[in-house]
Amino acid sequence: MSHPVSPLAPKTYPAMPEIRGLRIATAAAGIKYRGRTDVMLMVLDEGTSVAGVFTKSRCPSAPVDFCRANLPGGKARAVVVNSGNANAFTGRKGRESTALTAEAAAAAVGCAPGEVFLASTGVIGEPLDASKFSGLLAGLVPAAKGGSWREAAEAIMTTDTYPKVATRRVRLGEAEVTINGIAKGAGMIAPDMATMLSFVATDAAIAPEALQAMLSAAVEPSFNSVTVDSDTSTSDTLLLFATGAAGHRRIETAEDEALGEFRAALSDLLLDLARQVARDGEGARKEIQVTVTGAVSDASARRIALSIANSPLVKTAVAGEDANWGRVVMAVGKSGEPADRDRLTIAFGDVRVAHEGERDPSYDEAAASAEMQRDEIRVTADLGLGNGRWTVYSCDLTKAYVEINGDYRS
Amino acid sequence: MSHPVSPLAPKTYPAMPEIRGLRIATAAAGIKYRGRTDVMLMVLDEGTSVAGVFTKSRCPSAPVDFCRANLPGGKARAVVVNSGNANAFTGRKGRESTALTAEAAAAAVGCAPGEVFLASTGVIGEPLDASKFSGLLAGLVPAAKGGSWREAAEAIMTTDTYPKVATRRVRLGEAEVTINGIAKGAGMIAPDMATMLSFVATDAAIAPEALQAMLSAAVEPSFNSVTVDSDTSTSDTLLLFATGAAGHRRIETAEDEALGEFRAALSDLLLDLARQVARDGEGARKEIQVTVTGAVSDASARRIALSIANSPLVKTAVAGEDANWGRVVMAVGKSGEPADRDRLTIAFGDVRVAHEGERDPSYDEAAASAEMQRDEIRVTADLGLGNGRWTVYSCDLTKAYVEINGDYRS
Repeated sequence: MSHPVSPLAPKTYPAMPEIRGLRIATAAAGIKYRGRTDVMLMVLDEGTSVAGVFTKSRCPSAPVDFCRANLPGGKARAVVVNSGNANAFTGRKGRESTALTAEAAAAAVGCAPGEVFLASTGVIGEPLDASKFSGLLAGLVPAAKGGSWREAAEAIMTTDTYPKVATRRVRLGEAEVTINGIAKGAGMIAPDMATMLSFVATDAAIAPEALQAMLSAAVEPSFNSVTVDSDTSTSDTLLLFATGAAGHRRIETAEDEALGEFRAALSDLLLDLARQVARDGEGARKEIQVTVTGAVSDASARRIALSIANSPLVKTAVAGEDANWGRVVMAVGKSGEPADRDRLTIAFGDVRVAHEGERDPSYDEAAASAEMQRDEIRVTADLGLGNGRWTVYSCDLTKAYVEINGDYRS
Repeated sequence: MSHPVSPLAPKTYPAMPEIRGLRIATAAAGIKYRGRTDVMLMVLDEGTSVAGVFTKSRCPSAPVDFCRANLPGGKARAVVVNSGNANAFTGRKGRESTALTAEAAAAAVGCAPGEVFLASTGVIGEPLDASKFSGLLAGLVPAAKGGSWREAAEAIMTTDTYPKVATRRVRLGEAEVTINGIAKGAGMIAPDMATMLSFVATDAAIAPEALQAMLSAAVEPSFNSVTVDSDTSTSDTLLLFATGAAGHRRIETAEDEALGEFRAALSDLLLDLARQVARDGEGARKEIQVTVTGAVSDASARRIALSIANSPLVKTAVAGEDANWGRVVMAVGKSGEPADRDRLTIAFGDVRVAHEGERDPSYDEAAASAEMQRDEIRVTADLGLGNGRWTVYSCDLTKAYVEINGDYRS
């Protein structure tokens, strides 16, 4: 089950600097895949703060339950992630498996199980045999290195066709700090918090509460505005760690004015990773950016943008390079949000195709068709009702999506 | 753009009897398609009652607006339906087109434009040149015949691969009455009232208010419980006519006890047509019946069933004959409805695959795989919380769906 690399993959990868206070190791435990790594251990220095956001699924995986229980402690010393099995809907065995993994990691790192965070991604419903990799953790601690971010991104992939990494460097108070992040996604990517794992770390010194407030805000226009297929995973996890090794005055609240550049860089990095996830949506050939303006509120704009971005008919039209704006009208109409057909304006890229309830009189089919041949398709719908605005990132729906998901387990 | 007939097409078609007081004619007007009929005229005797339900889209088509305006009159004498162009999002031109068609039909039949009902199906956003067929209507009236139901079903097809007809005969008071119906669907089939046109008629004598009450109730477990791709059309229209020619005492209210058999037959006929629509979903190879039981309410069961039936990951798993019940768990979890992972039971056909939050200990993969090879896949999810129950009808998601919708306009 190997698929060609998405044509939307990054042309180059950034060199990933070290994050002081953090080391990474990976291993091939043979959980499901052969000939590749499938376990990632992140070791964090004492004093590391943690924040997180998780799937809103009512049927979350065992690792999500485990992380939610540890998050209020605010401290992290180890992260263990495996790919190939989601440890979701695995009942008592699932809880035994998270407990076993956390105890092994705690013993290996020398911390409490309450300072361990876990994530698993892959098939749902198969018991996860954690003994396949829990015994490896003690050996991975001394092997862990500061710069292994690309390797980490590779170890957590499932149907991803490329690893997803991003880095930013900004001033925070008297120090220069770094933010690194990795993500995996591909299918089941939809708000809120799709099968999407992402691990972001910084050497900044920020208290858990401040970190959580910044993360919760930054996730809305980024990971919570990405959708591949409208499906929401049981396992979505985004964790943000701050080791504090940069040595500046510790930031205690999200309102601290010193956070200006950091906050912007964090948001930018999350959007970068989220877009990489959309661009590697299963079978994706084109990225779709849907911007809704003129809605009655930002929340309404977001729901309309998601209705457009999740519409199978819009997504297949984009796959077919068909400037079928009638399907955009359909998706606006079905969203249930306030809309007035006769005020609606729709554009593909810079080509206005529909205006005030009908085809634009100056509509140029050739220009619209040329827009549809791009790798990045921008769809704009202006409702003409208010100032609400939102952008959602998605991808097209191709035969390869059906192929990938029709034989996922085989 | 011709696609092979769905493997789920009916093996035989019923002989469609006449409905007294109603005649049908069809014509090939060349609106978009070549070598086939694309206009249907239904002529109804004076005294015919009408009821209707329409798309909930906030961007409805011009014919939907037109029908909604006429419905309160309660009387119908003519129905004009065209395929190939939806006359949706066509602004002022769209309204001119409906007015022109209605005037031509009214003149041909000898009635008021307020007694004419219209429907159009096909591409959205292209102006509809009604003069292509309005001139034909006067000639169609004398050509109209009582038994042309199959021809009517063919004339309204778009990407449908087979015509959809159904008939029932029941006792109503002192008379035997007939109910006939036709439908078209294929894509954009989702609650509420997908791109789905359906025209149902009976020779029973029933007042418009009673007819509307029965139709509104019967549409919920049938057409409003069918989904192909979660997209909702701008044009969905279901009209029910009662000519009164059967000659029994006219029924004035939906509570009339004489309606027992009729009401059941109407519901049964609507479900028959709705399932025919699902089984001809674009690219469909398998019908999916999702039944949710044990939910906190029927409404909650319905939302969960729709979440399962609309999940691209569930639909592609069915296409791949993969008993991937983990994706059913995912779809339950993302529905947002009350659910307790550890009480959830899931079955494919009669094979229980998951129970109380984990894989069924007696799970037999071979038996589950055998279930997935059937034409009709029954998915049951029991929430274990209450008595809420609902069934939704859908189809799988195949590469052919992407193919059909990726080149729909070309």
